[in-house]
Amino acid sequence: MIIVGERINGTSHRVRDAIVARDSDFIAEQAVLQADVGAHYIDANAGTGPDREVEDMAWLVETIQDAADRPVCVDSASAGALKAGLEVHQGQALLNSATAEESRQQPVLELAQAHGARLIALTLDDSGLPKTGADRVAIAKRLSQAAEDMGIGRQDLFIDPLARSIGVENDQGIAFLEAVAGIREALPGIHIICGLSNISYQMPSRKLLNRTFLAMAIAKGLDAAIFDPLDQSLMAVICAAQALLGRDEMCMEYIRAHRAGRLEQ
Amino acid sequence: MIIVGERINGTSHRVRDAIVARDSDFIAEQAVLQADVGAHYIDANAGTGPDREVEDMAWLVETIQDAADRPVCVDSASAGALKAGLEVHQGQALLNSATAEESRQQPVLELAQAHGARLIALTLDDSGLPKTGADRVAIAKRLSQAAEDMGIGRQDLFIDPLARSIGVENDQGIAFLEAVAGIREALPGIHIICGLSNISYQMPSRKLLNRTFLAMAIAKGLDAAIFDPLDQSLMAVICAAQALLGRDEMCMEYIRAHRAGRLEQ
Repeated sequence: MIIVGERINGTSHRVRDAIVARDSDFIAEQAVLQADVGAHYIDANAGTGPDREVEDMAWLVETIQDAADRPVCVDSASAGALKAGLEVHQGQALLNSATAEESRQQPVLELAQAHGARLIALTLDDSGLPKTGADRVAIAKRLSQAAEDMGIGRQDLFIDPLARSIGVENDQGIAFLEAVAGIREALPGIHIICGLSNISYQMPSRKLLNRTFLAMAIAKGLDAAIFDPLDQSLMAVICAAQALLGRDEMCMEYIRAHRAGRLEQ
Repeated sequence: MIIVGERINGTSHRVRDAIVARDSDFIAEQAVLQADVGAHYIDANAGTGPDREVEDMAWLVETIQDAADRPVCVDSASAGALKAGLEVHQGQALLNSATAEESRQQPVLELAQAHGARLIALTLDDSGLPKTGADRVAIAKRLSQAAEDMGIGRQDLFIDPLARSIGVENDQGIAFLEAVAGIREALPGIHIICGLSNISYQMPSRKLLNRTFLAMAIAKGLDAAIFDPLDQSLMAVICAAQALLGRDEMCMEYIRAHRAGRLEQ
């Protein structure tokens, strides 16, 4: 499982204040905390306005990489901010995100190609939010083909089938899970990623839904996720799922995590 | 999800003592506790020796049904004990279990047919424990055909693909999950059941493994399980999974469970 730590997101007031104040100690601490518990990428989302996001993103990426030995997931809806983040990034970044929308597909693919970055692509096109699993699989295939046409292989492409709240639309959990299974079958070798918290939006007992959803999605073929890696219960589910799928030789990592007190009973 | 409550099992000393002492109050209490939290069947496993199991099973089934308005899962490796349980059972029982072993397939199928009972069938034949998912699917197909030949339809047949400990054999979790997916695809309409605790035998942090495994197996098509329904964390996973699969209209059952304090955060 590839874990993208999402604690550095400007939609949080505390993070936004730190970005605006150029509080590098706070950002560095958040980056190190996430790296220490096993995040493979540190997400950087400035979440500030168009007047300053380009500058903020460059500062964020540099500050994170000065503190933590990890690549950054450069996260913005703005191509300008993505470009600014890529230009200062050391090593292979992960871009978050392209979509299949006409305005956003080609520009972001070109950025990824130019900088040799890996890429998250949302199953979203100009016809609006996908409803069914099959809708998502169809868009994923188009995204994969478009990326391949640009020389970006499946090993560098992360499809995000867009988890949406079951509290808003009852059938969106099963639609997502069917999408994961369908993409895993149709596009072997591709990565499948999602943000975990949307699924439970407006629902009670959200953590239970998030961790049950994570286990179910991994069973269907999800191999990457964006969440707060300091949430020990989600990290424990990943550790358990790896052992259950035979991806943890002799279950040694699971046993180590147990001994270190990182698993609950 | 069909839940078989497994608290009345003679391998527990406390239960065995109650059976031997004909302590109907204790057995009745265990039956009612399980029915009250939502068990659909109450498992009755006398676990006593061949000299007395027939008599014990009849007493157990009567005692459970006197106390709780639920059918019993009559659970024994002995055809004689199964028969004794069936003979006193009111309504449609669940027999646990047939296998594809020559000594156990036909006699138990005949018992189920004669009493109109539903039936759990283990994917086990005379060649020993199945190793792979494909082995289990092949045996499940033979069991389903044999049951159909006796007039027992898929709606009354519960295939148990035999969860075995990942602590003993690393690849048994994925083998089980592949079996569930394969059986769900090959035999639409059949039930797939398992005991939950074997998967984590000899492992630490067993409850985490059990509930993660349950969520993953439900995602693959498991629709019944044998476990202690007083384990609130497993019941909570089932409640969450039903909501995530769109089987809980408007998530009302999930919200009700939350309000009743039956879900953790």
